[in-house]
Amino acid sequence: MTQTNAVRPLFLSFDGIDGAGKSTQRDLLTQWLGEQGHDVVLCRDPGTTEAGERVRDLLLHRKELDLHPRTEMLLYMAARAQLVDDVVRPAIAAGKTVLCDRYLLANIAYQGHASGLELEDVRSVGKVAVDHVMPDLTILLDLPEDVAFPRLGKNLDRMEAKGVAFMHRVREGFLKEAEVYPHVVVVDAAQSIDAIQTAIRSAVTKRLKELAR
Amino acid sequence: MTQTNAVRPLFLSFDGIDGAGKSTQRDLLTQWLGEQGHDVVLCRDPGTTEAGERVRDLLLHRKELDLHPRTEMLLYMAARAQLVDDVVRPAIAAGKTVLCDRYLLANIAYQGHASGLELEDVRSVGKVAVDHVMPDLTILLDLPEDVAFPRLGKNLDRMEAKGVAFMHRVREGFLKEAEVYPHVVVVDAAQSIDAIQTAIRSAVTKRLKELAR
Repeated sequence: MTQTNAVRPLFLSFDGIDGAGKSTQRDLLTQWLGEQGHDVVLCRDPGTTEAGERVRDLLLHRKELDLHPRTEMLLYMAARAQLVDDVVRPAIAAGKTVLCDRYLLANIAYQGHASGLELEDVRSVGKVAVDHVMPDLTILLDLPEDVAFPRLGKNLDRMEAKGVAFMHRVREGFLKEAEVYPHVVVVDAAQSIDAIQTAIRSAVTKRLKELAR
Repeated sequence: MTQTNAVRPLFLSFDGIDGAGKSTQRDLLTQWLGEQGHDVVLCRDPGTTEAGERVRDLLLHRKELDLHPRTEMLLYMAARAQLVDDVVRPAIAAGKTVLCDRYLLANIAYQGHASGLELEDVRSVGKVAVDHVMPDLTILLDLPEDVAFPRLGKNLDRMEAKGVAFMHRVREGFLKEAEVYPHVVVVDAAQSIDAIQTAIRSAVTKRLKELAR
């Protein structure tokens, strides 16, 4: 793909347990990437598309539904397939940099490691859902669950309401995946906001250099 | 599994293009199976469970959503996973006979053969969604699309609204699958209601004998 702009576009996702500070860091990174000449598209998974937001509502705000882990996982995948086709792939094709709040890795951690689905099942469905569109870099904001959980406040969504022991398994799952996949970079989210952002920018810069080779 | 009742329970699905007469035939078969001593549980896929009915609404009645075939397929699979865990598997375990309006085969025909998804992708996601719970027998009501389509009336759902050329590809897909899978029995739905029902009962009786061996 020939790029007419000076910067190489990037598909970047943020992940980690709730309360790790993803939104704050994403906003700071968005500003910095803009200053570097990136045309940034923000999205969230599940969500962003109209279908994805409907599915997100079922997943996070309909606590009466009693969804099984396989159902959850497949609903996330459905929202992601729509996101890929409607937003991520067109943005990448147009030379834009995509910053996505969560992506496939979250299903592997939440429904695989933490809820007990076979990891290979989640990966094989994921392969179909994303249709080869995977992040160049995933920033995993890592924070102990006993620090993150109290930050969530009282109005918990369906995933958050699974509690601190569940969050522990999710965190462990994320860390195990990061050991396997080189595109997943773990950032210590117990640092100051500035230090976290510096670590993220450093990971982005390094990845952009690798991709430019 | 030890059965205390005299009849062997069966998991049976009905499929075929819309307008082929599935509901009429299912009602007649339900009555007959009851007379034979079966404790029949009816369900529809997508649907039956609360989550499944929400997903059904997105799939069939939200024409503004512009769902991609991969999204459609994954939403059907999510509804099916919930149906399996909440309804089908418990019913089979309790010795009941399950009659389901559509099942996995419909995704292979509609999103695979007719909408162009890779058949292997649909099959591999399907394997995860159904978690080994597959029908003992699928009755495929086969009718030419130019006979079935005019029966649908004016208030078409999102799938039906794809039109007669789409229905043609769906029908061809169903027939191709029936050649591959011995548990799929094709019944000519252009016959009289009584003749169709006789053919269905004959297929059910045959399958029950095979399973009793």
